[in-house]
Amino acid sequence: MSPERVRFPVRISLLGCGTVGGGVIQLIEENAEYLASRVGAPLEIKHVLVRDMEKDRVPQCRPEWLTDDPERVLGDEGTDLVVEVMGGEDPAREYVERAIALGKGVVTANKYLLAKHGTRLVDQAIERGVDLAFEASVGGGIPVIRTLREALTSDWVESVHAIMNGTCNFVLTKMRDEGTGFDDAVAEAQRLGYAEADPSLDVGGHDAAQKLVVMSMLAFGARVDVEEVPVEGITEIDQLDFQFADRFGLTIKHLAIGHDRGDSIALRVHPAMIPKSSVLANIDGVLNGAFIQGRALGPCLLVGQGAGDMPTAVSVVADLVDVARSKIEGEPGLATRGIQMKQRKLMPLSEVTSRYYLRFDVADDPGVLATVAGALGRHGVSIEQMVQDGQATKPGEAVPILIITHTSKEGSVRDALKEVAESPFMRGAPRLIRIEDA
Amino acid sequence: MSPERVRFPVRISLLGCGTVGGGVIQLIEENAEYLASRVGAPLEIKHVLVRDMEKDRVPQCRPEWLTDDPERVLGDEGTDLVVEVMGGEDPAREYVERAIALGKGVVTANKYLLAKHGTRLVDQAIERGVDLAFEASVGGGIPVIRTLREALTSDWVESVHAIMNGTCNFVLTKMRDEGTGFDDAVAEAQRLGYAEADPSLDVGGHDAAQKLVVMSMLAFGARVDVEEVPVEGITEIDQLDFQFADRFGLTIKHLAIGHDRGDSIALRVHPAMIPKSSVLANIDGVLNGAFIQGRALGPCLLVGQGAGDMPTAVSVVADLVDVARSKIEGEPGLATRGIQMKQRKLMPLSEVTSRYYLRFDVADDPGVLATVAGALGRHGVSIEQMVQDGQATKPGEAVPILIITHTSKEGSVRDALKEVAESPFMRGAPRLIRIEDA
Repeated sequence: MSPERVRFPVRISLLGCGTVGGGVIQLIEENAEYLASRVGAPLEIKHVLVRDMEKDRVPQCRPEWLTDDPERVLGDEGTDLVVEVMGGEDPAREYVERAIALGKGVVTANKYLLAKHGTRLVDQAIERGVDLAFEASVGGGIPVIRTLREALTSDWVESVHAIMNGTCNFVLTKMRDEGTGFDDAVAEAQRLGYAEADPSLDVGGHDAAQKLVVMSMLAFGARVDVEEVPVEGITEIDQLDFQFADRFGLTIKHLAIGHDRGDSIALRVHPAMIPKSSVLANIDGVLNGAFIQGRALGPCLLVGQGAGDMPTAVSVVADLVDVARSKIEGEPGLATRGIQMKQRKLMPLSEVTSRYYLRFDVADDPGVLATVAGALGRHGVSIEQMVQDGQATKPGEAVPILIITHTSKEGSVRDALKEVAESPFMRGAPRLIRIEDA
Repeated sequence: MSPERVRFPVRISLLGCGTVGGGVIQLIEENAEYLASRVGAPLEIKHVLVRDMEKDRVPQCRPEWLTDDPERVLGDEGTDLVVEVMGGEDPAREYVERAIALGKGVVTANKYLLAKHGTRLVDQAIERGVDLAFEASVGGGIPVIRTLREALTSDWVESVHAIMNGTCNFVLTKMRDEGTGFDDAVAEAQRLGYAEADPSLDVGGHDAAQKLVVMSMLAFGARVDVEEVPVEGITEIDQLDFQFADRFGLTIKHLAIGHDRGDSIALRVHPAMIPKSSVLANIDGVLNGAFIQGRALGPCLLVGQGAGDMPTAVSVVADLVDVARSKIEGEPGLATRGIQMKQRKLMPLSEVTSRYYLRFDVADDPGVLATVAGALGRHGVSIEQMVQDGQATKPGEAVPILIITHTSKEGSVRDALKEVAESPFMRGAPRLIRIEDA
């Protein structure tokens, strides 16, 4: 900034003022002077759209900013930038689209909106020449979008392995470290405020899938329909799996995984066994992490608070500084500039190769092992290790057989499992957990 | 960028064309189209300053770019941006200062230059209204500068714990995992090209100290003289230390540590024992990592290749894109804008508090333990654990006493050690390794 040039403030309106929105207001007000020096102009809050005018807000939020009339915010020509921290699909989507159409820069923390409509919103922003920044939509306070967009700008992302759901990670960590059962661990996560009343979006894996789709826009330049990403949650994992994992020097994490295979990309979300020596193995509790492999850069791991009001607010304000800078320089579109996306072929899960942990809870009958091994062999799946150390203590009790395969095609493993699943000795469905060496 | 606006290319000259410079040329040429879309204008290489005109260069480097005449590069009015990848203090410093004075944006990968003259160079760049970007000077391909500068822009950095030297980390990892002796591990690092012929700058800890000083500019807004940072290397660590560490669930890493204590900052570089469950514990081999604790953000860990031609080149090009964007927007100074530094008081090491691992190799005489414990007690250092399990197998043989202290002031611990060091039963100097809970 030329020192002699006088700058008008950049005027910001917030859509929503929940805990993240409150954090954003706090950070803007408390760091006003420093942010102004970073942006080159002061940041000024104009409107804050809320549903309930009577609700208590953070002390930094001035009453005159509040309004429950969306038209007052969206129709305001004096607003330069819009911060969407209301969440959910509607009316967030309509508001963001209107803001873009009116030429306002947008910062959003809304992963659901991005996962579902992100590519179209980015198209609209590029078309209109405005910024759309969304660091806070993925991994809360972790600068994963910034890193993919900027640090890796001259590189080619080969793969991403990410722990993207704090609830899953908390539950798995508790199960591993304290031997807690799945249900108790979820209850504890709820008690601590880490899990929703209905935790199914989290433990079912769909939250992580949404974030993977957003990362894939930047990592692989991919337009992906979130519905097409194969997703498994952690609801099937039990203590026996952790015991076996431990025995093989492995631990269990819920991962969102993306690979660029050149002519296609392979995306998948599921629990995975990883070596205890992996850099992802110690990312515990509610921490999230993204392990990015760049062709030139090599490995790059980013870890931090994947959720939480203040970490997320820090990411929103970082975006806000970028978008505000672009605005006053008359060059809006920096955050979105150069994002190139195309429809990319998704590799079917059956084509993906991996090592597998397979568990068969079976009747303790002679010949069972041979049947299981035979089925795998017929489908070309070779066995690296096989363990059956329990013996039934009473008649009819199930004992687990544990198999680690060499690298195999998932389709072949599935075919073999299907065969085994029909055997009379099976007690429950066979269990499959992929082993990732990331 | 408005689509209708025609952009002149941004013209870049390189100072130096070693392996990093070659990587930069490769990345610029191979990703020309994408980089142009990110910048909003093509990047064009004008001059490449080399010492030896005859030496082989990467195939993307065109012969007509090469010159061994610094005046041709620095005196060239047509050069917009200068990339300094020659390293060392002189003449790099003179060239960078001249480029800044001439109003050219500068990207540098030179940690030594930054650690020694960084604050003054940043001052000059701000004064002149040009960019000075230096991501590649710290942690090679890890976006640590970008994260401190941008992602944390509204936050307050409380502390940094960083593994910043790949040679140290490789040597310690090899000693831990393979039981290798220090000298052999260093020789192996040299054989693999990870360590210099003279490894003392690395294993002595001074390389990490330089990077800590550069990080402190952004993390703590601090102007620090690198000579004043307390530095210890890893040359004293031996297998016995690793064995004891393992027994207490700890591992040994060489850390660069900074804390903001409000009225002062505490900087130090030394080997430290950390819990095996720490996110830093699995950052092994030549990987580097920086664990940043933000007041609002909470913990944030960044890991990657701390050195290497291509990772470093990726960071240089990321900076180049930023600086080139600023240039064409007529707003140079974005990379440096808002960096606020002041002289900050350094907390003396004697005031720093920590838990300590203390090792005394002593004659196997009765009363030794009491003497050691007594000295610690007199200086107010309380003992958490004490181990003496070896017994001398022949007369005069030393046996180790191992003590873990509760959190204590380093000055008190040092005073106690001094007392014990003079005792006749001591065989060699007492060993002190700090225990960090990061």
